[in-house]
Amino acid sequence: MVLASQKQKEEVENWFSNLRNEICMSFENIENNQSTGPHCDLPPGKFELTETKRDEGSGGGGLMSVMRGGRVFEKVGVNISTVYGKLNPLMQKSMASRKEMTGIEDNPIFWASGISLVAHMNSPKVPAVHMNTRMFWTPVASWFGGGTDLNPMIEVAEETKFFHKVLKKTCDKYNPEYYPKYKKWADEYFLIKHWNETRGVGGIFFDDLNTGNWNADFNFTKDVGKAFLAAYVPLCEKNQANSWTDAEREVQLIKRGKYAEFNLVYDRGTHFGLQSGHDPSAVLMSLPPVAKWP
Amino acid sequence: MVLASQKQKEEVENWFSNLRNEICMSFENIENNQSTGPHCDLPPGKFELTETKRDEGSGGGGLMSVMRGGRVFEKVGVNISTVYGKLNPLMQKSMASRKEMTGIEDNPIFWASGISLVAHMNSPKVPAVHMNTRMFWTPVASWFGGGTDLNPMIEVAEETKFFHKVLKKTCDKYNPEYYPKYKKWADEYFLIKHWNETRGVGGIFFDDLNTGNWNADFNFTKDVGKAFLAAYVPLCEKNQANSWTDAEREVQLIKRGKYAEFNLVYDRGTHFGLQSGHDPSAVLMSLPPVAKWP
Repeated sequence: MVLASQKQKEEVENWFSNLRNEICMSFENIENNQSTGPHCDLPPGKFELTETKRDEGSGGGGLMSVMRGGRVFEKVGVNISTVYGKLNPLMQKSMASRKEMTGIEDNPIFWASGISLVAHMNSPKVPAVHMNTRMFWTPVASWFGGGTDLNPMIEVAEETKFFHKVLKKTCDKYNPEYYPKYKKWADEYFLIKHWNETRGVGGIFFDDLNTGNWNADFNFTKDVGKAFLAAYVPLCEKNQANSWTDAEREVQLIKRGKYAEFNLVYDRGTHFGLQSGHDPSAVLMSLPPVAKWP
Repeated sequence: MVLASQKQKEEVENWFSNLRNEICMSFENIENNQSTGPHCDLPPGKFELTETKRDEGSGGGGLMSVMRGGRVFEKVGVNISTVYGKLNPLMQKSMASRKEMTGIEDNPIFWASGISLVAHMNSPKVPAVHMNTRMFWTPVASWFGGGTDLNPMIEVAEETKFFHKVLKKTCDKYNPEYYPKYKKWADEYFLIKHWNETRGVGGIFFDDLNTGNWNADFNFTKDVGKAFLAAYVPLCEKNQANSWTDAEREVQLIKRGKYAEFNLVYDRGTHFGLQSGHDPSAVLMSLPPVAKWP
């Protein structure tokens, strides 16, 4: 097992910070350029930044960036965080059961850095979206993980196809097996088990990535972040100026209710965040601004 | 351990059905009598009934009663169900770890009957409320459980006091230790751990009740159901005709978001329902008609 070094951890942390800047700039550009359509008379949305902290006695923190009530974005959060310290008993227990984690009990500490994004849009015609990439380190193993998935309120087949095509192209640069494997993983991961339906139209999901070539794994993780922008921004630009009906808005609010169900009942990132004592308003930034269960 | 008999199971099931009828009638009366106040021009709300089923291969089902868009009630669900069959591996595992459940592995079947109610009100000045009572049976043990808790959007100290006073009086009829014990249990149970705040102003919560006197335990469980009506209906009638501001409605919608967080992240009844293959729309009937995470 190739373990990430201190220098590599710093590189990773810097990358997530740079990616955050790039995404926030790109989303603020979308707001600034929105000159027609339903909410174009509003001032363009701007990200508000808040430093986030973990509970006392835990190490690390992050930066929460939220834009609310924009012309295009109803609520979008882009969080970066770097957290470290002692693994809590629950996390320890779940890790100790994995073969590659042998020895973790002797020094149960961790370091994790990542970026997490969820966007809820004004228009039911613009899909909601999620992206997250991260590196997790312990004294016995380190690995990358992440993914992105598209959540249309009203599905348009060609948009789903476009989103997946950009992701496939990125995956194929590294390994022809990545896209089918990570697409399948996303389909399984983003299943709302109690409804037996996926929360959106999928994307890719990967975890435990350590091929032995740290640079390749890091580059792949970086490229997933960039591919997210390339796959999502065009869908935004294509639809954002179109008007919508009350019935379409209602469909959107009900879809969002199910999105909240997934995040609160099943999402591992949400559970990790809440259990590891991170600021709950940062962890729950992913929840929709308004949702319905009629 | 005194085990409930087949006849007693039938009595229990009948009681929940009667309690359902009494509550639904009481709530429809509230709707019919509402002649002043913000929504009095609407037709009075009526319960719609749906039979609910479990997944194929599982036994039992229930009756879901939901009233939506009334003069006073924005969404209230009153569910009864009687379910039985094989314990799933997760339930078996959690039970097998309890001393009084020794032997459950040999015949891992169960029978459970109960009533569950959640009311979300139009007015932010009328508290939301939850009540649930149930009997659980396995071949090695049977017990009663349940409780009720008040969820004001804007707390009024004297209303909290009144609600608790009615519950205390009911508890004291059976055992002076019940109220302090079950109030404390509710305070612990209804804690939204990640916010370190309770979801409302508490009430009572009890579980694993088997004193050896089945009749006394059943009577107590019945009285909790009746006490719920006596404790809640007056709070409804006191406040339902008063108007409210947009700011108060906003407070209500945000409170409801946290209520949904509790139910989806922590509530054991919700998890039991989703895991045991019951109709998810009945299990999630507790979710608010509309909620905000701004």
